[in-house]
Amino acid sequence: MASTTPEATGPGRSAQDGRVSAAIIVIGDEILSGRTQDANTAYIARWLGELGIDVGECRIIPDVEDEIVRTVNELREKFDYVFTTGGIGPTHDDITADSVARAFGVGIDYHPEALAVLEAHYEKGQLTEARKRMARVPDGADLIDNPISKAPGFQIGNVFVMAGIPIIMQTMLESVRHRIAGGQPVVSRTVTAHLPEGAVADGLRRIQENTPEVSIGSYPFYRGTRYGTSLVMRSPDPAALERVVEEVRGLIRDLGADPVDGDAA
Amino acid sequence: MASTTPEATGPGRSAQDGRVSAAIIVIGDEILSGRTQDANTAYIARWLGELGIDVGECRIIPDVEDEIVRTVNELREKFDYVFTTGGIGPTHDDITADSVARAFGVGIDYHPEALAVLEAHYEKGQLTEARKRMARVPDGADLIDNPISKAPGFQIGNVFVMAGIPIIMQTMLESVRHRIAGGQPVVSRTVTAHLPEGAVADGLRRIQENTPEVSIGSYPFYRGTRYGTSLVMRSPDPAALERVVEEVRGLIRDLGADPVDGDAA
Repeated sequence: MASTTPEATGPGRSAQDGRVSAAIIVIGDEILSGRTQDANTAYIARWLGELGIDVGECRIIPDVEDEIVRTVNELREKFDYVFTTGGIGPTHDDITADSVARAFGVGIDYHPEALAVLEAHYEKGQLTEARKRMARVPDGADLIDNPISKAPGFQIGNVFVMAGIPIIMQTMLESVRHRIAGGQPVVSRTVTAHLPEGAVADGLRRIQENTPEVSIGSYPFYRGTRYGTSLVMRSPDPAALERVVEEVRGLIRDLGADPVDGDAA
Repeated sequence: MASTTPEATGPGRSAQDGRVSAAIIVIGDEILSGRTQDANTAYIARWLGELGIDVGECRIIPDVEDEIVRTVNELREKFDYVFTTGGIGPTHDDITADSVARAFGVGIDYHPEALAVLEAHYEKGQLTEARKRMARVPDGADLIDNPISKAPGFQIGNVFVMAGIPIIMQTMLESVRHRIAGGQPVVSRTVTAHLPEGAVADGLRRIQENTPEVSIGSYPFYRGTRYGTSLVMRSPDPAALERVVEEVRGLIRDLGADPVDGDAA
C-alpha cells in the first residue's frame, strides 16, 4: 500500500474566501488522445454553479493507477468536493475504483447491494466476471444510483466517482444532489460589445479595480468577419452586479457602440 | 519573487518509456465555470499525436497567478513539452505572460519585435496601453507568430504560450511545428462491436495481457436505443497492431456479432 499522505500544501479555497469549491477529475486515455471531446467538465461546472459551488480546477489524466491516486489525494485535500468521471466500467482499463480505494488507504470488495442490482439487471448467465467487477466498491463508500445501465458509482469522503458516458454521469449527478451542501449562488450577467477587446480593456480595468466584489471576465470572439467581446460579470451580490452592468454599458456607449444584453457571440 | 523551485518529484514520462510527452494547461475562468466549452485540448492532443507525442495530462485552471505559476512549474519538469492556452489578451484578467515569467524566475518587458508588429497593425492612436500589454514577453522568450490578430504568443524553455481563441491557437501551433521534436508516431485502429462492453471485457483482458505493446481502449456508447463498444488499439508497432486487430475481430465474431471497422459509435 502506497502512502496516502495528501500532497496538498494548504487549505481549500473555501476556507479562504467563504465559498464552496470543487475539482473535477476526468479519467481516460480517450480524452487525452483527443479521440473523444470531453463534455462532462462543462456540464458538471454549470450544474455546480447553480448550487453556488465554484469549480477551482479540472484535471484530465490517463488510466494509470499512480496518476489517479496522486491526483485524487491532492485535490480532495484542496477542495470541498471532488467529482471524477470515467473508468468504472467492466474492462481491463477501468481501474478508477481500485485507484480511489488505494488513495483512501482502504480495501475494496464486492458491495452486496451493487451485486444485487447487477444480478437483478442481467439475465441468467450474463453476469460475467468482468461485469461483476463493476460491483467492486471501496470499503466505507456509499453507492451512487445509476438508473440507466445499473452499475453504480460511489461516494467516499468528499469524492464522488461517476461514469464517463455523459448521459449516465448526468443521472448520477442528480442522484447525489441532496448530498451536496452548496454555497451562495453566484449571479451572472453578460453584455456583448461589438468592439475589439483592446478597445474596452482600459475602461474595464478601472471598473474592475473599483468593484472587486464583482468579477469581470472579457471574452473576445471571431465569427468569420464578425468580431466583438463578451463581458461576463459574476457576483454573489446582485446589487453590486447591477451597478457594474450599468457601468459597463456606459463604457461601451462612450466608445461609440451599442451594448447588447446577453451573449451575442 | 516567489520560489521557482519546481514541485515535480521525478523524471518525465519520456525518460521512463522512450516516448515524447506533453501536457496542456487551459487557463481561463470561463472554461471552469462551464460558460465556454473547451475545444483546444482535443485539437492540440490530436495534433501532437500526429507528431508522435503523447499528452500525459491536461489541467484547466483559473486566471489566478499563483495557480498558473505552480502548474507551469510542476508540468514543465514532468513533461517534455507544455502548451498553454488563454490569458494573453489585453484585459485585466490576462495574466498568463506575467505568471509564466514568474514561474521561470525571469523579468518581463515590452518585446521590440512584438511592439513593432502591433504598431504596424493598429491605426495611429489605436495602440492603447491595454493593447501594448500584449507585447510584454518574459525575458529570453521567443515569439510565436500570430497571422490573424497579430498579438504574438511566445515560447520559453519547453513551454509554449498560446491564445485561447481556437482559430488563433491553431495557427500558432502551425507557427511552432518546426520547433517540436516528435517521437515515433503511434498508429491506431478502431473496431466497433455492437455488443455491450461487459460482453467483450473478459476476452479483451486476455488479449491485452498477451500483447502489452498494443494499448487497447474500450469505449461504450449509447445513442438512443443503439449501443455498442468502440475498441481503440494503439501502438508504435504496426505489425503488432494488426495482430491485435485480428484477434479483436475474432473475439467479436466468437460472441456472435459482426466487427465493424472504424468508429461506428
